[in-house]
Amino acid sequence: MPQNTLQMLQTHPNPAGVFDLNALAECIDACFECEQTCTSCADACLGEGDHLMHLVHCIRLNLDCADVCGTTGRVLSRLTQPDQNVLRAQLQACVAACKACGDECQHHAQDMNMQHCAVCAEACRRCEQACQNLLGSVAA
Amino acid sequence: MPQNTLQMLQTHPNPAGVFDLNALAECIDACFECEQTCTSCADACLGEGDHLMHLVHCIRLNLDCADVCGTTGRVLSRLTQPDQNVLRAQLQACVAACKACGDECQHHAQDMNMQHCAVCAEACRRCEQACQNLLGSVAA
Amino acid sequence: MPQNTLQMLQTHPNPAGVFDLNALAECIDACFECEQTCTSCADACLGEGDHLMHLVHCIRLNLDCADVCGTTGRVLSRLTQPDQNVLRAQLQACVAACKACGDECQHHAQDMNMQHCAVCAEACRRCEQACQNLLGSVAA
Amino acid sequence: MPQNTLQMLQTHPNPAGVFDLNALAECIDACFECEQTCTSCADACLGEGDHLMHLVHCIRLNLDCADVCGTTGRVLSRLTQPDQNVLRAQLQACVAACKACGDECQHHAQDMNMQHCAVCAEACRRCEQACQNLLGSVAA
Repeated sequence: MPQNTLQMLQTHPNPAGVFDLNALAECIDACFECEQTCTSCADACLGEGDHLMHLVHCIRLNLDCADVCGTTGRVLSRLTQPDQNVLRAQLQACVAACKACGDECQHHAQDMNMQHCAVCAEACRRCEQACQNLLGSVAA
Repeated sequence: MPQNTLQMLQTHPNPAGVFDLNALAECIDACFECEQTCTSCADACLGEGDHLMHLVHCIRLNLDCADVCGTTGRVLSRLTQPDQNVLRAQLQACVAACKACGDECQHHAQDMNMQHCAVCAEACRRCEQACQNLLGSVAA
Repeated sequence: MPQNTLQMLQTHPNPAGVFDLNALAECIDACFECEQTCTSCADACLGEGDHLMHLVHCIRLNLDCADVCGTTGRVLSRLTQPDQNVLRAQLQACVAACKACGDECQHHAQDMNMQHCAVCAEACRRCEQACQNLLGSVAA
Repeated sequence: MPQNTLQMLQTHPNPAGVFDLNALAECIDACFECEQTCTSCADACLGEGDHLMHLVHCIRLNLDCADVCGTTGRVLSRLTQPDQNVLRAQLQACVAACKACGDECQHHAQDMNMQHCAVCAEACRRCEQACQNLLGSVAA
């Protein structure tokens, strides 16, 4: 997927924007990866039987994070005449959602040995970091 | 729809949260209304023939605003164990998206007499205001 | 919301399509209402404590139905040069999702007296019926 | 991303379903890739200046395809107690959306030498084929 995303950015009629194209492609991919992983983790938690009661907060944060990451990935995929305030605010929302969900998943990965939460925590960290990287390039 | 949204909030096992339920229902409805209206306005602009070239920025902001409002409406619809940082950041992103899109649509409504942009500008203003109202109740 | 949706359709440069505008506006509204209601019902089920174990299937179907209805509402909101095969197939997917979720919610409304499931079952029925109505106007 | 998706499926408490896990992971990835690519292609078309008038149908189909693929990727990411009718109908909707968009993009790639449309046409073909593969495993 990274290769495809980068190709789309490179063949855009106006590729020059506020972001470095490689950093942008990485962040877009991290957003859609995190949307998939969080959707999957919410569903895996839902199937955990006796442990389910302890995973309610995790499911809730997974669902929020999936929605926020999907929207952020879409907004970032648009290069035509972007609005800096929208970009910055949506990136900040994505950092908040990934941080909350990543912390919760890491907790369950360590204390309850939930392997899907371990994979999901990593995806959240990657996406949070990639959004932070882009935020450095958006006008304050 | 408002009645339905409020009924869902009132029948929730844990309806007590940071928000007044009526203000919350109003904001959720405003978000989904704005998602629909912006999706519709982007498509109407796309069908404007000779005027299309002047509506590129409007279409782009419509698409962003539709995505951001849809995600905000979903996050707000969840009452179970919310995260204040996620709520606040997503509400702020929604304010930014609605402001950018509402300003652009109002411009086309006045200067080009685009009626769909006039309806859309109003939906953006309502949603922006409803998000601002809720932001007053979220912990800083 | 219905009034807003209809206004957007009526101010579109090419409002004439395969659908009656009133039936179309009704269906678009039913889709977004159902997306909201199902998102809310999944979250309410998640907060049901001791009953949660019995609501796993309901949550899963709620999440599917919310996604399918949201996408159907967006596709229907576009009047510019639609593709009949896409319209028909997405309407059929929406009928299937609303039927599955509506049946499950009705079951919990009756047997477990879950009031949010009762409201959600009605929203699913309305959306299923509105999609069926439109399907009669799409070329086979 | 493929590796991550497969890991999530493999660590799920109930990984056994109707689908082969590798084919499922491939289809989920193809759906999210196609959502990104179509979102990006709609935006690239919007930036094509003098050619924009000829790309209206392409933008419309791109937006539909992005929404349908995103929803299909989410529904497929859930393994817990799926509904066969919903799976089948949403996969068929995704085949229809990818076919319509892929055909249109291929046309512009060949006749107008639009490179982003060429990349997008390939993503649509991959997703259409991956959905067709899964449809063979869903009960009729």
